[in-house]
Amino acid sequence: MSVLPFLRIYAPPNAVLAAPGLLAVAALTIPDMSGRSRLALAAVLAVIWGAYLLQMVSTLLKRRAEDGRTRTPEIAIDVLAVLVPLAAFLLVGTPDRSLYCAVWLLKPLRDSTFFPVLGRVLANEARNLIGVTTLFGVVLFSVALAGYVIERDIQPDKFGSIPQAMWWAVVTLSTTGYGDAIPQSFAGRVLAGMVMMCGIGIFALWAGILATGFYQEVRRGDFVRNWQLVAAVPLFQKLGPAVLVEIVRALRPRMVPEGAVICRKGEPGDQMFFVVEGRVSVATPSPVELGPGAFFGEMALITGEPRMATVSAATAVSLLSLHSADFQMLCGSSPEIAEIIRKTALERRGAAPMA
Amino acid sequence: MSVLPFLRIYAPPNAVLAAPGLLAVAALTIPDMSGRSRLALAAVLAVIWGAYLLQMVSTLLKRRAEDGRTRTPEIAIDVLAVLVPLAAFLLVGTPDRSLYCAVWLLKPLRDSTFFPVLGRVLANEARNLIGVTTLFGVVLFSVALAGYVIERDIQPDKFGSIPQAMWWAVVTLSTTGYGDAIPQSFAGRVLAGMVMMCGIGIFALWAGILATGFYQEVRRGDFVRNWQLVAAVPLFQKLGPAVLVEIVRALRPRMVPEGAVICRKGEPGDQMFFVVEGRVSVATPSPVELGPGAFFGEMALITGEPRMATVSAATAVSLLSLHSADFQMLCGSSPEIAEIIRKTALERRGAAPMA
Amino acid sequence: MSVLPFLRIYAPPNAVLAAPGLLAVAALTIPDMSGRSRLALAAVLAVIWGAYLLQMVSTLLKRRAEDGRTRTPEIAIDVLAVLVPLAAFLLVGTPDRSLYCAVWLLKPLRDSTFFPVLGRVLANEARNLIGVTTLFGVVLFSVALAGYVIERDIQPDKFGSIPQAMWWAVVTLSTTGYGDAIPQSFAGRVLAGMVMMCGIGIFALWAGILATGFYQEVRRGDFVRNWQLVAAVPLFQKLGPAVLVEIVRALRPRMVPEGAVICRKGEPGDQMFFVVEGRVSVATPSPVELGPGAFFGEMALITGEPRMATVSAATAVSLLSLHSADFQMLCGSSPEIAEIIRKTALERRGAAPMA
Amino acid sequence: MSVLPFLRIYAPPNAVLAAPGLLAVAALTIPDMSGRSRLALAAVLAVIWGAYLLQMVSTLLKRRAEDGRTRTPEIAIDVLAVLVPLAAFLLVGTPDRSLYCAVWLLKPLRDSTFFPVLGRVLANEARNLIGVTTLFGVVLFSVALAGYVIERDIQPDKFGSIPQAMWWAVVTLSTTGYGDAIPQSFAGRVLAGMVMMCGIGIFALWAGILATGFYQEVRRGDFVRNWQLVAAVPLFQKLGPAVLVEIVRALRPRMVPEGAVICRKGEPGDQMFFVVEGRVSVATPSPVELGPGAFFGEMALITGEPRMATVSAATAVSLLSLHSADFQMLCGSSPEIAEIIRKTALERRGAAPMA
Repeated sequence: MSVLPFLRIYAPPNAVLAAPGLLAVAALTIPDMSGRSRLALAAVLAVIWGAYLLQMVSTLLKRRAEDGRTRTPEIAIDVLAVLVPLAAFLLVGTPDRSLYCAVWLLKPLRDSTFFPVLGRVLANEARNLIGVTTLFGVVLFSVALAGYVIERDIQPDKFGSIPQAMWWAVVTLSTTGYGDAIPQSFAGRVLAGMVMMCGIGIFALWAGILATGFYQEVRRGDFVRNWQLVAAVPLFQKLGPAVLVEIVRALRPRMVPEGAVICRKGEPGDQMFFVVEGRVSVATPSPVELGPGAFFGEMALITGEPRMATVSAATAVSLLSLHSADFQMLCGSSPEIAEIIRKTALERRGAAPMA
Repeated sequence: MSVLPFLRIYAPPNAVLAAPGLLAVAALTIPDMSGRSRLALAAVLAVIWGAYLLQMVSTLLKRRAEDGRTRTPEIAIDVLAVLVPLAAFLLVGTPDRSLYCAVWLLKPLRDSTFFPVLGRVLANEARNLIGVTTLFGVVLFSVALAGYVIERDIQPDKFGSIPQAMWWAVVTLSTTGYGDAIPQSFAGRVLAGMVMMCGIGIFALWAGILATGFYQEVRRGDFVRNWQLVAAVPLFQKLGPAVLVEIVRALRPRMVPEGAVICRKGEPGDQMFFVVEGRVSVATPSPVELGPGAFFGEMALITGEPRMATVSAATAVSLLSLHSADFQMLCGSSPEIAEIIRKTALERRGAAPMA
Repeated sequence: MSVLPFLRIYAPPNAVLAAPGLLAVAALTIPDMSGRSRLALAAVLAVIWGAYLLQMVSTLLKRRAEDGRTRTPEIAIDVLAVLVPLAAFLLVGTPDRSLYCAVWLLKPLRDSTFFPVLGRVLANEARNLIGVTTLFGVVLFSVALAGYVIERDIQPDKFGSIPQAMWWAVVTLSTTGYGDAIPQSFAGRVLAGMVMMCGIGIFALWAGILATGFYQEVRRGDFVRNWQLVAAVPLFQKLGPAVLVEIVRALRPRMVPEGAVICRKGEPGDQMFFVVEGRVSVATPSPVELGPGAFFGEMALITGEPRMATVSAATAVSLLSLHSADFQMLCGSSPEIAEIIRKTALERRGAAPMA
Repeated sequence: MSVLPFLRIYAPPNAVLAAPGLLAVAALTIPDMSGRSRLALAAVLAVIWGAYLLQMVSTLLKRRAEDGRTRTPEIAIDVLAVLVPLAAFLLVGTPDRSLYCAVWLLKPLRDSTFFPVLGRVLANEARNLIGVTTLFGVVLFSVALAGYVIERDIQPDKFGSIPQAMWWAVVTLSTTGYGDAIPQSFAGRVLAGMVMMCGIGIFALWAGILATGFYQEVRRGDFVRNWQLVAAVPLFQKLGPAVLVEIVRALRPRMVPEGAVICRKGEPGDQMFFVVEGRVSVATPSPVELGPGAFFGEMALITGEPRMATVSAATAVSLLSLHSADFQMLCGSSPEIAEIIRKTALERRGAAPMA
């Protein structure tokens, strides 16, 4: 397992490049801008377009070399990011030409691990989201109808037709409240008060469905990834599958770059670590290195004392961390593992102090 | 079990017909519209009315044929959808006549599976919702009283009576903020700041109650439906009831129309499938068909390799899908089932490659 | 166990009386009102005051008769509801006199079961709520300071001092957005955008803490009440304590007034019922009455068929309902109970058809 | 274990001192203020600065005395709180000088237990929060672009460039709705309606991630603290680790100052207590004192009767409370503990009545 996929999550070069490009697009629409600034911004767009051209070429070449796995969406985004601005440059008149670079909005979606998750959530919850949207539509129309009937004679310019009343209704239902259309009659204001309360209720359903669905999907994804990491730690292979599921839920993966400190001597410790890949260095009087399958930091959990040594990453290292609460559960569910951990801790204490 | 009830969920013809009808009602209230457009819109209304007339007749006939099960609400909606516009046409003057077609707002409620769920949620949570509404009322009145006392001398036109102050209070408590009534004094603004914070708190309670109640009800409904599907899969009948409950919670039903691809060769696989009804076709060199009770897609979960064959629906097919996380739990809790799945996977690998 | 405490929850006479009283108070502040309407409203206040006087007397008398249990808050509310309007009538000038009846806002708090729950939630979550409020205060001050520094020269009348900028900050942080103070500079607008996002985040924490805390408290309360009801059903006394906890969590108490129908023949059934107190009547050819400890409605859960008989309440009856999902769990965890329920169902089917 | 760390949570002197200081800073920016008031406010600032100077000295001295544990952030905050106002007083001109005291905003962060929790939540959820923020950015830009294209000809002063349209977009997406920029065309209003709905969805994800992440972190922290308290109660040392985890989750720590009443005779009781540290006094005819490891209040849970005696804190006391629901679980999972509690309750009932 390589460190790269983890790093890519946090620093997607596509998204980072798209940001200045889109800012330049935005800035170019400002009317009173000097020709010089305009030129500079256009240069920014050109440079980014060049970078995306290179990326497209590299993606297309990679595709050839690779096996038949479909990466159609990625290729489509890369090609569009190059062709749409090119076509706009050739065919469209000056002021609006740069707007077509807005196609780069697709770039952050290309490498993100977040958008596929979001897509699955929307697919899973489709039925409920459609239900709430229907409810929203029904309430919106009823409210607009009521607002129209109540206020049409008082404010014909604001509530003179159902579409106009619907504008007021949607602004009020979403509690945005622009304040451009406000009911004046007593009945209209009572209606508005009830609409605001309904709006909160509908958006609460919406929020609840999205938030819960999203969380379930994220937990599911974490589980699958952790499962693969746990399979690399020999100690856990002694656990029955039921306990293993619990452990997989509790562990948190952590990538540490080379040289970084994982825990520091004298700090209080609330988690222990398992090495999945790479090596860590324990700064005891006679320094020790630990490799894949080893664990450290258990002393602080057993005795409650502060860390007894500083541990840092000798190479880029992939760890699984276990919080003290889950450590108790692990020890409780497998006396065998508890025994191994305690014995190792005792040996280490006898020998050299450990974190 | 038929595929129809599932399809009906996603494409309720009643709701689909109501949408253009209601849009036409809305459009007809626009003051400056040509007579021609008016006529076209009226024709749309007439056509939809005709469709609903046919539907009413069919509902009434079906009712006769059926046993004594009560479907009163459905019949009432169908009859109202026909009679109310008819009565309006006969009795009411021109401009407002079409407004009565708004009774079609009831149509989307007729077949929806969402609104009964919502109704049960409101019934279950009635006590808490009444409690929060009481709290809202008490806070609203207190705030309006305080706003009235503080601001009545400064802005007699906006805060000159408690009902007027209440309008400001409800607009502020719901964080809508139209901006038509704004306290000017220092005390009034401090009050407003606290009101906004209270409002968020009250609506947080509201949202929490609705969202949690809704989710519990949805999960309960899914459970009942899945339970019936699981009963059709022979493999699961070997499970004890306690494990069965867990499996029913984990499985997700999925309806696939004839010819659609279920999983594609070379894609990564994170779920396996059980066939409840219908037949699927596995595109191996010598294609295989699997029927009710069979399962497929388990290889990807066991080995972590990409799908080894494309599987598509030979007929419309009802599946249960199991994600890899839940697959581990299933194998962990029943060694017997794990054995059967592994043995089948081995046999298949020996014979023909499988998804 | 009596039916009364349940009824009292849903129809607290104190709150119901307070509503028209407070409406009258509000109406009396409307400036241009005829003397006649004023007199009528004052009469309403007088009548309600009289009712509260009687209630106070009854509360005080009851207190004497009762044992030493403290009911101080109730007595205090009853006394204040009588004395404050009386004192206002004797001491205060005309127009503001009726405002003092707003003390009746306390009345809905008197019998409510919701407000004590809310109080416990606020107490339990005090530390987190204080933390979020501190965060809110820190962000509010920082934002006001930044807004003041950025905008003070551009709009000295809106952002000329930190207190003024704070008014803008609180209106924006709560996403109320009155629109009376709006930053004009580019930096000010970027700040405003970030403030809106911060505001959502802070209120999300607030909402999350309140909603989760509230739900935990409600579940805890339900548990304690259900536990007492379950103790009255002999069947459940055969369960071990661990399973009993699960059942108590699953059961939902339900009060049915005399004569009401509990389930109707031909309807689909998704729950069974246990009689805690009172008697139900089963409308079979030879009607049967069931008393405390009996159960019914289990056939629909076992066979999936519609209800086979209508069951109605012969007296006011206290029931516990069990949904089908939880029924499966109950049967799974106690083979003994499953056996009793199945045997009874079989006997009933042999004898007379049952719901 | 001392009572002090608990008290410090609820009354952090740093935060309490910062409040009047910051209010004085705010007040000093009000333009039309008399010289006298100005002087008084400056005096307040000087006094608080003095207090912080003393605190800095004490922190620095303590640091010397202590072992090598790093407390760098605390020291940095203390030093900044003294040096920044000092430097401002020496170098900056009159009116803005006091603004630099806003550095005291850091003081409430110094001792708070809330902000480290919040920091860990943000770190844990970084990936999802970045994902939602990216989504927000993409939607914001798309919406601004669409708004610009639709409205630029109709309202060139409000939607004349993408940055201007973005101001409208962010105000609408966050449902703030200042009302300064409002789309006028039909297409623009349909867009605005959809934007409001998108905004709610995005902020729902945000809220869901923050709220859930926060709650998980708080629960984890409570667990670690309770675990240490539970270790001090001998009764619980008989439990297996799996049950112990459950108990630790159920218990709630409570600090009671000397002399305070813990439970009162005649009140209904829904929890029992374990003494961790300090002594409680039971007001029976012959008063009894209970020390660390003792428990009381169990009678009310077993019999359901009201409390039989008033118990108050003889010294400052650290308790663990157990609600009745969790009491049932405890008794269910360990027959041995149930036996001890019941036996003690019986002995107490035979001897002297107990709470």
